[in-house]
Amino acid sequence: MILKKTSVPELQAGVEAVFERIVGFREDLHRHPELSWQEFRTTLKIKELLAEYGIKDFSTPLQTGVIAEMVYAPGAPFVLLRADIDALPLQDEKETPYRSQNTGVCHACGHDAHTAVMAGVALALKTSGAVLPFNLRFVFQPAEEPIPSGAPRMIEAGALEQVRYALGLHMEPRLPLGVIALTPGWINMQSVRLDLTLEGPGGHSARPHETADLLWLASRIIQEGYQMVYRRINLLDSAVILTFTEIEAGRGYNVIPNKLSLTATLRISDPRKRDLFIGQFRDLLQYLEKESGAQIGFEYREGAPAIHNDPELIHSLHRNIRENFWLPVEVQTDFRTPGGDDFSFYSEKVPGAMVRFGVRTETMTANLHNGRFDVHPEAIRNAVSFFLHQLAHLEG
Amino acid sequence: MILKKTSVPELQAGVEAVFERIVGFREDLHRHPELSWQEFRTTLKIKELLAEYGIKDFSTPLQTGVIAEMVYAPGAPFVLLRADIDALPLQDEKETPYRSQNTGVCHACGHDAHTAVMAGVALALKTSGAVLPFNLRFVFQPAEEPIPSGAPRMIEAGALEQVRYALGLHMEPRLPLGVIALTPGWINMQSVRLDLTLEGPGGHSARPHETADLLWLASRIIQEGYQMVYRRINLLDSAVILTFTEIEAGRGYNVIPNKLSLTATLRISDPRKRDLFIGQFRDLLQYLEKESGAQIGFEYREGAPAIHNDPELIHSLHRNIRENFWLPVEVQTDFRTPGGDDFSFYSEKVPGAMVRFGVRTETMTANLHNGRFDVHPEAIRNAVSFFLHQLAHLEG
Repeated sequence: MILKKTSVPELQAGVEAVFERIVGFREDLHRHPELSWQEFRTTLKIKELLAEYGIKDFSTPLQTGVIAEMVYAPGAPFVLLRADIDALPLQDEKETPYRSQNTGVCHACGHDAHTAVMAGVALALKTSGAVLPFNLRFVFQPAEEPIPSGAPRMIEAGALEQVRYALGLHMEPRLPLGVIALTPGWINMQSVRLDLTLEGPGGHSARPHETADLLWLASRIIQEGYQMVYRRINLLDSAVILTFTEIEAGRGYNVIPNKLSLTATLRISDPRKRDLFIGQFRDLLQYLEKESGAQIGFEYREGAPAIHNDPELIHSLHRNIRENFWLPVEVQTDFRTPGGDDFSFYSEKVPGAMVRFGVRTETMTANLHNGRFDVHPEAIRNAVSFFLHQLAHLEG
Repeated sequence: MILKKTSVPELQAGVEAVFERIVGFREDLHRHPELSWQEFRTTLKIKELLAEYGIKDFSTPLQTGVIAEMVYAPGAPFVLLRADIDALPLQDEKETPYRSQNTGVCHACGHDAHTAVMAGVALALKTSGAVLPFNLRFVFQPAEEPIPSGAPRMIEAGALEQVRYALGLHMEPRLPLGVIALTPGWINMQSVRLDLTLEGPGGHSARPHETADLLWLASRIIQEGYQMVYRRINLLDSAVILTFTEIEAGRGYNVIPNKLSLTATLRISDPRKRDLFIGQFRDLLQYLEKESGAQIGFEYREGAPAIHNDPELIHSLHRNIRENFWLPVEVQTDFRTPGGDDFSFYSEKVPGAMVRFGVRTETMTANLHNGRFDVHPEAIRNAVSFFLHQLAHLEG
């Protein structure tokens, strides 16, 4: 490996040379968060930063987002490094100097830090003068949050062409600062939105026997659904969480309603188990439809698949981190969360790894999607250093 | 009994003399229905009709409604004859010449007919020249429909003073024309509105264990409530119907809501069983509150009590109807319905009887509170004749 010639002090110096710049870059993005598909300023700032360091081989196949390439060995495979760039529609509640100046929009999921980390990796590599035996493709991806999201669009635009591995990251407030999670297999869950519409003849509250009592029916669906999901799926080899979240019906306190809407979120780590559950749930609804005389409309919409970290890739990353990494980090290998991330669209096509970096400190405890969530600069240093170190060791 | 001198032909002639007039009166009220507490024209028309027949001893203690007295024997007790006079906020869907001219308001509960019947009894008595051994108090009561309703106000105004018996009527589309229901004991049910407010911390749909899942909690309340009501109350000596009718919660498909509202109607024939159920339901809610960590607010509001027809009075009415009644009616003694009626406020204070008159024909089948509900004139003839006949036989 050519890069082995680049020594640890050189890599470390590369990080330090750009560190203040990328922390400032992250704070600038944090001040100016932009919602999904509207990341115009963010896109411009990424391009400006890369260009400032001589990285000018980039394309913008969508209206927002950037694909930047660092080609060391023409014809060699690429390693994809993905950062999501969009912010959330919620109010920044922090008092930091870099708090959001965009009312009602906030980088409360750490995508500003993800963007700064991957840009920092590019800048530090460039600064260190390292040469790799493979090529790099940085995917600054718009719209990670919504359904449908940005990853499939980036893939359509060619983001995965000639890619050998895909690497992604997430800042993780459930892990302390200094902890890095390298978990093989499933590490999060697919979110599936279930929408039910119950319709019946309606009627008088004194005569439930003459009509379909839709609140009773809804209570049966909730109870049966909650029981089925934990009796029909082996909880030792996959994870599942079903939660009913929205319900609405009513035309007066003494009137049996003729319509009820019911919404749930299913989170599930295994797509085969998802299909199994959906099939069994349909059978339940068909039975209840016949039993009650109501009509039950059922639709579901899948969010990004669960991420399955490639075990061999994770094994390599774990081995590499034990050798010569210059930061005193701790690795955790069994950290999983239910939250979805559309990085899975890349990692279901090529071996991939989503790496989580702990950010919790005594004073920074707010969770993701909370207006007080923040990322300590040391977490950015950890992440940039981690990826730089991995790229220096990764087999091409 | 002095009235025994008034012969059947005289009574019958009394009815026939006023019949066209009261059918026309009923059609006039039907054309001009008025909502509860707004029965101003109706009140005026009742007074005009009574005055037209020389009945001028009336008072109007409330803004609407009329109390009219026919005093035959000063100092003797009164028989109270009650008619409700208000209409419903729904659209008349009939095509009859006397259909409602008041958009969105309709006499769909037959109160126009009740008013015409009791006015007809007064007119026919006056016309027949009958003299009774007791006095009559006609209570044309406003606002039977809402909670709170008009009966307690009329009672406060003295409607029950010196009253020996209270008689009321209801037109009944579940019984065929020609059938009269004289049912002893409970004949309908009290309606009790139950309002629940569930509050919890809310949270992410992926983390139900960290919060209170309010839809699960609501489904447990519905299921437990439905089971409790039929396991804890002896269904052989009283009737009960619990129906959950309104539910609302939701702040997004992937968010566990922090608030849920749930409404039910309890209908119950026995006030002791009502108190028993409310107590047991409270215990359930307290248990679920502790178990779930949610706060459960619970309020209930009682509608009019169930009507309990006085068995002795019903027995007298039934015996009387077998003797010399000139119309070929059929008596049913076990007809009960769940619908409330605030006649119970009178009949819980003095022996009372609510008599139901069948109105269903081949062409008139619409139910109460339906925009097509109508009353056949023969039902009015049956009812006027029935009460006239009863008054001629009732012990003072």
